[in-house]
Amino acid sequence: MDETAQTPTTRRIRVLVAYDGTEYHGWQVQPGFATIQGVLEEIISGIEGSPVHVAGSGRTDAGVHALAQVAAFTLKNPIPPWNLRKAINRLLPPAIRINTVEEVHADFHPRFDSVAKTYRYTFHRTEIVPPMDARYVHHHPYALNEEWMREAAGRFVGTHDFRPFAAKDERYIRGQSTVRTIFSSDLHREGDRLIYTVRGSGFLKHMVRNIAGTLIECGRGNLPHNMLPRKSGQTAPARGLTLVSVEY
Amino acid sequence: MDETAQTPTTRRIRVLVAYDGTEYHGWQVQPGFATIQGVLEEIISGIEGSPVHVAGSGRTDAGVHALAQVAAFTLKNPIPPWNLRKAINRLLPPAIRINTVEEVHADFHPRFDSVAKTYRYTFHRTEIVPPMDARYVHHHPYALNEEWMREAAGRFVGTHDFRPFAAKDERYIRGQSTVRTIFSSDLHREGDRLIYTVRGSGFLKHMVRNIAGTLIECGRGNLPHNMLPRKSGQTAPARGLTLVSVEY
Repeated sequence: MDETAQTPTTRRIRVLVAYDGTEYHGWQVQPGFATIQGVLEEIISGIEGSPVHVAGSGRTDAGVHALAQVAAFTLKNPIPPWNLRKAINRLLPPAIRINTVEEVHADFHPRFDSVAKTYRYTFHRTEIVPPMDARYVHHHPYALNEEWMREAAGRFVGTHDFRPFAAKDERYIRGQSTVRTIFSSDLHREGDRLIYTVRGSGFLKHMVRNIAGTLIECGRGNLPHNMLPRKSGQTAPARGLTLVSVEY
Repeated sequence: MDETAQTPTTRRIRVLVAYDGTEYHGWQVQPGFATIQGVLEEIISGIEGSPVHVAGSGRTDAGVHALAQVAAFTLKNPIPPWNLRKAINRLLPPAIRINTVEEVHADFHPRFDSVAKTYRYTFHRTEIVPPMDARYVHHHPYALNEEWMREAAGRFVGTHDFRPFAAKDERYIRGQSTVRTIFSSDLHREGDRLIYTVRGSGFLKHMVRNIAGTLIECGRGNLPHNMLPRKSGQTAPARGLTLVSVEY
């Protein structure tokens, strides 16, 4: 008796997902709310014909965008990757797109295997935000010393305890380290925009938005820029934040 | 008795309006629907303290966008232009912005005084439309001979009867000329996008969207490209169309 014929082979699939997070309650499934993970699980489960769990590289908050979030799931369906991409995209709303589908080794996990992530936070600096950009930037037309902000941004590089930059509900979780390593942390101007790009080993909940809010306080002169800012400023709004890439 | 003190001076104000038309039922006021003109009239009437009519350079269809629609209205309120812009933008939703406010001569009319308009129609040519572009392009990933389309686009230049390119309800209006002059009509590639730009003396309802649909038929080989296409193809979707500028 041929046992392999009775046991369908499962395949581990990795996908890159781009999304406009404006109308979603973040990545993670929440009953009663539209989430990126929820929409993907519904569609992929439909293609598979049974429930499929879609794991992501990490949560993104409500309203945060992604150029290349990494997700993975396990399928029995033998559909070729290129056709699978087409089938999923046909069912997704235009605000979510699968850019890449590939088979990976069976134990690939998008969160545990990641070694670095890059986020971008965009401030719009002039009085008027063009309507077609409004969903993707934080409007801050007020006076800021951008040289101070650039200097402060650079101070985040290195291994630090980022507890003050975590969301309040993540700050004191027993036994969970709040130490993270930042590989690069840069601020640059592009026309009317000020763009903060940060690459690190991992990020706590709200960490990038709290760094962005802190940079504003440094630019206003309310926090020192010639040392690693010790106090968090405001949590900058979700709409300015985009997950750019995840590395393995 | 000083008569001028009893008769407040009225001022004619011209504004440039940018909008993301996705969630609006076009420019023109329609009871029960959100329209660009309707939102502007409500806000400006509120500032004036009495009903204000806002005239536009022309209607745009539901879902069509604008970088610089021109509108004008008459105010008694002496608020300086710069403050007026600020006051209106504070009350507008982020999808609509006033970019310029200036005082013009009393009889300026944005429609009757216009001498040229420029529209842009954007086709997205590859399989996947990035989520942040999806609201502003027409997705057409299928085979097209773009050289034929470019040649056909050029054939629209000149003075022609555009009756076949008008919306059905505008084609046979007695006594209304359907002759228009096109000054330039070009198609070019920008990365994954094919962009059609047309500048003309004026445009009939649906005319640019019908030209865009016709260009697709030329690119598929269904209509000749070596002469002014005589038959209209499909009406291309509103989301790909943007009013770029109006000249006086």
